[in-house]
Amino acid sequence: MPPPTDLFPHATGAALKTVEAHQEPQDLVFYSGWFCPFVQRSWIALEEKGIPYQYKEVNPYKKEKHFLDINPKGLVPAVEYQGKALYESLVLCEFFEDAYPTHKPSMLPEDAYTKAYARIWIDYVGKTFVPGFMRLLMAQETEKQDAALAELYEVLRRFSAQIKGPFFLGEHFSLVDIAIAPWITRDVIAAEHRGYSREDVGAEWKQYAEHVETRESVLRTKSNQDKYAQVYAPYLKDEAQSEAAKALRAGRAIP
Amino acid sequence: MPPPTDLFPHATGAALKTVEAHQEPQDLVFYSGWFCPFVQRSWIALEEKGIPYQYKEVNPYKKEKHFLDINPKGLVPAVEYQGKALYESLVLCEFFEDAYPTHKPSMLPEDAYTKAYARIWIDYVGKTFVPGFMRLLMAQETEKQDAALAELYEVLRRFSAQIKGPFFLGEHFSLVDIAIAPWITRDVIAAEHRGYSREDVGAEWKQYAEHVETRESVLRTKSNQDKYAQVYAPYLKDEAQSEAAKALRAGRAIP
Ligand SMILES: N[C@@H](CCC(=O)N[C@@H](CS)C(=O)NCC(=O)O)C(=O)O
Ligand SMILES: N[C@@H](CCC(=O)N[C@@H](CS)C(=O)NCC(=O)O)C(=O)O
Repeated sequence: MPPPTDLFPHATGAALKTVEAHQEPQDLVFYSGWFCPFVQRSWIALEEKGIPYQYKEVNPYKKEKHFLDINPKGLVPAVEYQGKALYESLVLCEFFEDAYPTHKPSMLPEDAYTKAYARIWIDYVGKTFVPGFMRLLMAQETEKQDAALAELYEVLRRFSAQIKGPFFLGEHFSLVDIAIAPWITRDVIAAEHRGYSREDVGAEWKQYAEHVETRESVLRTKSNQDKYAQVYAPYLKDEAQSEAAKALRAGRAIP
Repeated sequence: MPPPTDLFPHATGAALKTVEAHQEPQDLVFYSGWFCPFVQRSWIALEEKGIPYQYKEVNPYKKEKHFLDINPKGLVPAVEYQGKALYESLVLCEFFEDAYPTHKPSMLPEDAYTKAYARIWIDYVGKTFVPGFMRLLMAQETEKQDAALAELYEVLRRFSAQIKGPFFLGEHFSLVDIAIAPWITRDVIAAEHRGYSREDVGAEWKQYAEHVETRESVLRTKSNQDKYAQVYAPYLKDEAQSEAAKALRAGRAIP
């Protein structure tokens, strides 16, 4: 990621409209970075469920004291709920289910078995797809890029083989879709710079990606593509200094 | 891990008694490896909740077809529930909550905020403590061992600072305790071979570890220490060939 001062200061495009509509104080304060794919997960869940929230833009690279008090890891997304702090994108999505049970639809299946099945694939996205996507962008030499692309295709094909369509679990747009949606929104970066193509993954993936990226909640939390491109520029040169980039370089899990 | 043929074939000690008491066919078949810390998590949850289950010992290193049909990742723990397969230790623990709502106590707090707070720390254990513990065992050169130990202490101190006592969340033995318990049961390996000491982490940690390791469900799922020692021998020489060890060596997240 660029040094904090270079980061464009606010959302643009459709996401800006959504931000503007969520300025009033609420029980739930949503600490967001417009550029962050992890943020977009929780943001999509809030929008899907129609939960009232107050949007606050944070530059997490600045590690300001007020923000570190909320999330000692210094990462967005984070929330303050009735004055108490929580963080971690997927934990927040589950929290919205538990804290707002009357806000439908639920992002998790009712049935215990299907819910566990969904969690297996959410875990898969976090453990294999997300780091694989970042490694692809950060790879510099051609052979490394080719290897990373081949690996990412494998990861996505295993995922695709499970897609019921239109969404992962079928008609029900769920937390599995939310877990991966922000990277579908951003995969054009991999297409433009690393030879990735949805079609090369397979027809199911291409179709699925189109369903997910045109979901209203996904569109409403999306900034302009040129702004995402700015954020990814340092990744493409392997100069990003985010916690995630540093962890991947050190051979560690994304924090 | 040793090659499949070397693996001691069944549980010993208190765990063997528990295995023997769970041989009858049930709706829930628990595919276990007696030696596996991830297995022990799910096993503790089953014991805590008094869920009827049939125990089946699997050697996951053999990747036998029947087992791969249940878990394509080829890892224990896995379950078959009314003929359908699930896996991933923490997903299974959550599944037991959802599928057996009348089996109390719940391993997760009722309150939505506390539940999310618990999930943050469960995530922390999985992302930072577990790989840190394995890296410590696998480190060969003295400087690397020292660095790994110092890092593990930091990780455990951040965790310890949150312990309410006697358990992580207070009186309520929860999924946070379950997530870390198997490595408390096994930390003597790090003490004997890598200079780790509970006291050096801090008094809270030492006391907490004692509460957790003497919990009945933890004791009931524990095999004899010499058998664990055999399992860890290849790790200590950095010769383990488990998926987890290979992933850590390659700088990847534990699968
Ligand atoms: N595991 C976290 C990851 C969040 C994360 O990495 N957020 C990034 C922005 S995309 C951040 O805040 N980075 C600040 C930094 O790296 O210093 C989650 O799922 O919420
Ligand atoms: N993320 C998995 C990890 C399970 C795991 O790594 N199990 C090991 C035994 S402790 C296994 O089955 N290994 C077989 C192999 O590595 O080939 C979970 O939490 O259940």
